[in-house]
Amino acid sequence: MEGYLIATWKMAFEGVKKGQDLIRQGGTIHKAIMEAVKTVEDDPSYHSVGYGGLPNLEGEVELDAAYMDGDTLGFGAIMGVKNLKNPIEVAYDLCHYKRNCVLAAAGAEAYARKGGYPFSPMLTEEAEERYKAQEKNVDTEKLEAYGGHDTVCIIGRLGDTSACGVSTSGLFMKLPGRVGDSPIIGSGCYADSEVGAAAATGVGEDIMKGCLSFAIVEKIRAGIPVQQACEQALGEHIARLERSGHKPGSMSVIAMDRDHHVGAATNKKAFPFVVGTMDGETVLFAAVNEGGNMSVICPDEAWIQAYQGD
Amino acid sequence: MEGYLIATWKMAFEGVKKGQDLIRQGGTIHKAIMEAVKTVEDDPSYHSVGYGGLPNLEGEVELDAAYMDGDTLGFGAIMGVKNLKNPIEVAYDLCHYKRNCVLAAAGAEAYARKGGYPFSPMLTEEAEERYKAQEKNVDTEKLEAYGGHDTVCIIGRLGDTSACGVSTSGLFMKLPGRVGDSPIIGSGCYADSEVGAAAATGVGEDIMKGCLSFAIVEKIRAGIPVQQACEQALGEHIARLERSGHKPGSMSVIAMDRDHHVGAATNKKAFPFVVGTMDGETVLFAAVNEGGNMSVICPDEAWIQAYQGD
Repeated sequence: MEGYLIATWKMAFEGVKKGQDLIRQGGTIHKAIMEAVKTVEDDPSYHSVGYGGLPNLEGEVELDAAYMDGDTLGFGAIMGVKNLKNPIEVAYDLCHYKRNCVLAAAGAEAYARKGGYPFSPMLTEEAEERYKAQEKNVDTEKLEAYGGHDTVCIIGRLGDTSACGVSTSGLFMKLPGRVGDSPIIGSGCYADSEVGAAAATGVGEDIMKGCLSFAIVEKIRAGIPVQQACEQALGEHIARLERSGHKPGSMSVIAMDRDHHVGAATNKKAFPFVVGTMDGETVLFAAVNEGGNMSVICPDEAWIQAYQGD
Repeated sequence: MEGYLIATWKMAFEGVKKGQDLIRQGGTIHKAIMEAVKTVEDDPSYHSVGYGGLPNLEGEVELDAAYMDGDTLGFGAIMGVKNLKNPIEVAYDLCHYKRNCVLAAAGAEAYARKGGYPFSPMLTEEAEERYKAQEKNVDTEKLEAYGGHDTVCIIGRLGDTSACGVSTSGLFMKLPGRVGDSPIIGSGCYADSEVGAAAATGVGEDIMKGCLSFAIVEKIRAGIPVQQACEQALGEHIARLERSGHKPGSMSVIAMDRDHHVGAATNKKAFPFVVGTMDGETVLFAAVNEGGNMSVICPDEAWIQAYQGD
């Protein structure tokens, strides 16, 4: 399971393949991650990322994205942005600056327009229909990471460089302006080339409470193997939330250390993830959680058919 | 130096005194922290927080605030908000929810209006004059935490509860929509009643790269004394940034553990902070950094007179 790229959810499969191709052709890890994220952003059949993402409580698609370069710890992020075709491009752009690296809403949109990034309507007919079919008196305290899929997170390692990119339309029916974990450094993702990188997907409010991505990277830094680092960070955080009487929402994590070892963990029953391996293959894996016991499987066709979600 | 409250910068002195009074009268730690932050927000003579805060590149005051309740890990934050009188009140409100706890810009303003929070113009004549006197072709890559003061951060501990609140108008001449570390959980502040709390002030982009507040709390959790936890977290982060060729901007931190022990550290020459002690006194201290050697002093009148800044 050594890899160049690791990505959340089955939906990232085609993107990871394209990213692997770019690496083979001599592209940088940043180019590969960007291509992988953009492939998911552009696909209208995924309802949690970019074009086709499900809207907020007022029917508008609001997008969050972040990029972190583990060499410089440069971090760029945008949040609550409307009608921007590829949010990840602007996040990547911003990670090169020393100041003004995180921009919200209208300010982020103004920056993107000035930079010539393409804008287009992001609400598809299908997403609009799902919005119209949704009860308007939704309980916003019970919003969940929907339908078994959520943020696309791509982590890569090439040579001595670790990096990660994440993109999402956030929780369906969220309040306007709601910011999840994805554009929050250390929560949605974190990369330090001296150590590795980690990223998270699920209910952002719960992920943020434990700065999960940073917590995983710190465990790897301390010498804990990457799979254990994922399981321990998630497990300890869930236990902490439960001690305070809070029932945690869905949370899943991926990580890759500096030796390309990968790890994944989830508090759902199953969490599919994609690995682009060093020998050029792209492989679907799944973290399977049986009563708290985590195992990583390489699922067969029957498992994949039976899995509900992207 | 055991304390109920610890706060960044000399400007927090009056607020901490008021917070201490509330505790003596039987108020909660949350009430005390809120009162302390609001006192600084409402004072137009402080140019980095609330009313009187210096504006962004387009002359508008944009405010960030966050609140974290260490009992529940509940975190509320708003970012890039205009004309809201007391941003900390809305951040505190949001920390009680399970979803939609972090709101940006127009979405945060809509939430605050609906909740009846007071709005008023936040740009003072003095701040506007400083804006007009500023070179318009400012190098936005060289913005600094200005004039020796910055975010107000208040950490408190009462009984078994740790909590913290932070509020800022961010970097003078920032890009519209720029988000600093203050409303970012784990960067601007973090509280876990089982351990303690930490908060940071300075150049947000650099603080975020190390998730400094979470890093300090994790060191305290691991058994490192709170003053060492502050020095180590800051020192290791600065060393990491320097290894990547990046010259860090100003960063200062405060923390308080579950036994009311407090700590502070800075990469500036001096960083004043306020402690509201358990015997009801409010005392100004300063972390003094002499070539990397940190010491905490209780400054005399001459030192305070000579100190330039709030």
